Amino acid sequence: MASLRVELGERSYPIEVGVGLLGDAACYRPFVRGQRAVIVTNTVVGPIYLAQVKQALHTCGLEVLEIVLPDGEAHKTDASLNQIYDAMLRARCDRSVTVIALGGGVIGDLAGFAAATYQRGVPFIQVPTTLLSQVDSSVGGKTGINHPLGKNMIGAFYQPQAVISDVAALNSLPERELRAGIAEVIKHGCIADAEFFAWLETHMPQLLARDPAALTHAVVRSCEIKAAVVGSDERESGLRAILNFGHTFGHAIEAGLGYGEWVHGEAVAAGMVMGAELSTRAGLISSQDVERVRALVKAAGLPFEGPSGLSEARYLELMAIDKKASGGRIRFVVLERIGAANVRGDFADQTVCESIRACARI
Amino acid sequence: MASLRVELGERSYPIEVGVGLLGDAACYRPFVRGQRAVIVTNTVVGPIYLAQVKQALHTCGLEVLEIVLPDGEAHKTDASLNQIYDAMLRARCDRSVTVIALGGGVIGDLAGFAAATYQRGVPFIQVPTTLLSQVDSSVGGKTGINHPLGKNMIGAFYQPQAVISDVAALNSLPERELRAGIAEVIKHGCIADAEFFAWLETHMPQLLARDPAALTHAVVRSCEIKAAVVGSDERESGLRAILNFGHTFGHAIEAGLGYGEWVHGEAVAAGMVMGAELSTRAGLISSQDVERVRALVKAAGLPFEGPSGLSEARYLELMAIDKKASGGRIRFVVLERIGAANVRGDFADQTVCESIRACARI
Repeated sequence: MASLRVELGERSYPIEVGVGLLGDAACYRPFVRGQRAVIVTNTVVGPIYLAQVKQALHTCGLEVLEIVLPDGEAHKTDASLNQIYDAMLRARCDRSVTVIALGGGVIGDLAGFAAATYQRGVPFIQVPTTLLSQVDSSVGGKTGINHPLGKNMIGAFYQPQAVISDVAALNSLPERELRAGIAEVIKHGCIADAEFFAWLETHMPQLLARDPAALTHAVVRSCEIKAAVVGSDERESGLRAILNFGHTFGHAIEAGLGYGEWVHGEAVAAGMVMGAELSTRAGLISSQDVERVRALVKAAGLPFEGPSGLSEARYLELMAIDKKASGGRIRFVVLERIGAANVRGDFADQTVCESIRACARI
Repeated sequence: MASLRVELGERSYPIEVGVGLLGDAACYRPFVRGQRAVIVTNTVVGPIYLAQVKQALHTCGLEVLEIVLPDGEAHKTDASLNQIYDAMLRARCDRSVTVIALGGGVIGDLAGFAAATYQRGVPFIQVPTTLLSQVDSSVGGKTGINHPLGKNMIGAFYQPQAVISDVAALNSLPERELRAGIAEVIKHGCIADAEFFAWLETHMPQLLARDPAALTHAVVRSCEIKAAVVGSDERESGLRAILNFGHTFGHAIEAGLGYGEWVHGEAVAAGMVMGAELSTRAGLISSQDVERVRALVKAAGLPFEGPSGLSEARYLELMAIDKKASGGRIRFVVLERIGAANVRGDFADQTVCESIRACARI
């Protein structure tokens, strides 16, 4: 087992990473108070892991309430949130209850936001069961729901008491979801750690084979990198933006194809190759470095090209929605080198289009 | 104009109190950033004050969006909250928008919670227009909505950028609402400041006549007292409970009669007399002190007796709902002397019943 700490002053919390943690009472004991816990999970994860988590909480002497929601981003809504509130209120949970989020990013966001707002805030523990949520959404305190007029429009920054990341839980993860998580792992190497990037170049087969030691290292190092960025910019005013490497292009791909066609990690993967291309055109990294990014994305079995049928003009149009939010210019995360990133808004449309074209069959 | 500061570390904020502030651009300028503001108000306050606030914000160079909700506690709901979200999203407000809560406690709670959760939190400014909200709900950062299964069940602790309390706005306040606000002012004297209590004994006629200087002093001193309590216990883990003096009995009165029959301040007023009675029976304050509390409540034109037809047994029953939440005992705020309070849970039902009977025509 490995452990790290997200440093956020009085809101600091630990992340425990290892094999078999989600059924281990000792992992929960230091972080629960009161007599009750509410496990929020979904219909896919619940049948596999709910019994183990429940057993561990019982061992801690807690009474356990279960809330099993339908699976998927389509359910990250007001309606699911109200389902959590209703169940907790009907069970007369008071402010000493601990909310346990057992599942991927959707469950973490929903349960975290419910915890942030139930009786003005109750403690919660994240037990992420996907690689994406272990390396990304469980760090940083973003919680919330979608609104018919936009994704993640309603939410709060709210930190958990602890994150318990069981890499054994990744054995039940569909292959495509595993690869999607690896995209964010690669991103962390790109923006912050050349050595980790090099480690990924040599250990990709082990990660894809779900080797526990390799997964533990990848999760820990990703969390350390994200935690360092978040720790210096909890409420996303500046530096935190470098975590969006590959995401501006990626969001355009997701929106252009219709959400769900490519999963987020796949769009980010192709987006990172575009971001690397843009970086070399800006005179920042060598074309060899672009090839390293492309090769690593390819080794992970992720798309290294944008989808066919999405024109450069359409990318620009879709990215312009982000542009409005930041005062007139599309801002991109670029690589200064492999292992260091920056945010810039001074690119000509033509340069952006060339970068897209170099990475897509249009 | 008087000014004080609520000290909460990085979440500290000022409260400005005076005459004519709500139409004064200079009051808003230091606290708004970005280019847009959203004023949330209701159908009673809006027609009187919205134009002035809007003008002041225009003078600050802001584009203004207005959201006018129906008036009253019955509208402190999910539906009103969604009305705010929808309007802000349709207007494409980003995270630089400032939310202005123009109204009483309901508007402050609703708009504050919308600000706390819109895109994970945007700045907001409280412009309370009732005495109750100026002396009570605008200090402390409690925001939220009611749920069909309980009042204030969904919410967040979220601090404003500033509170702008215009005592001139109290001129349009119905008499009954003014008196209800005075109940909380009296409470602050009871629990924390004997000198302020004595000042209230001599200045009640000026307060009821809405003398601006008297109102300014009462608002400032109340906010200072509440701010000091909140500052040492932001998330309500202990000390903050003394602010509930009169409220345990008061809640029973409100619930027993049906919410809305007596307004909150009226129920708290009679509840404070009961709390004073309980304090003397516990050997804490003299019967002369109980009479001072009773006389001050009476001078404010507030109920100094519980309503007829509500039995002691019914009080106990209603208060027992609070009991569950605090581990088996009904906890009461008692006065150690006029100007100092404490929380105790060691009263026999009989003592509680005698205190109620001494202050109610049963």
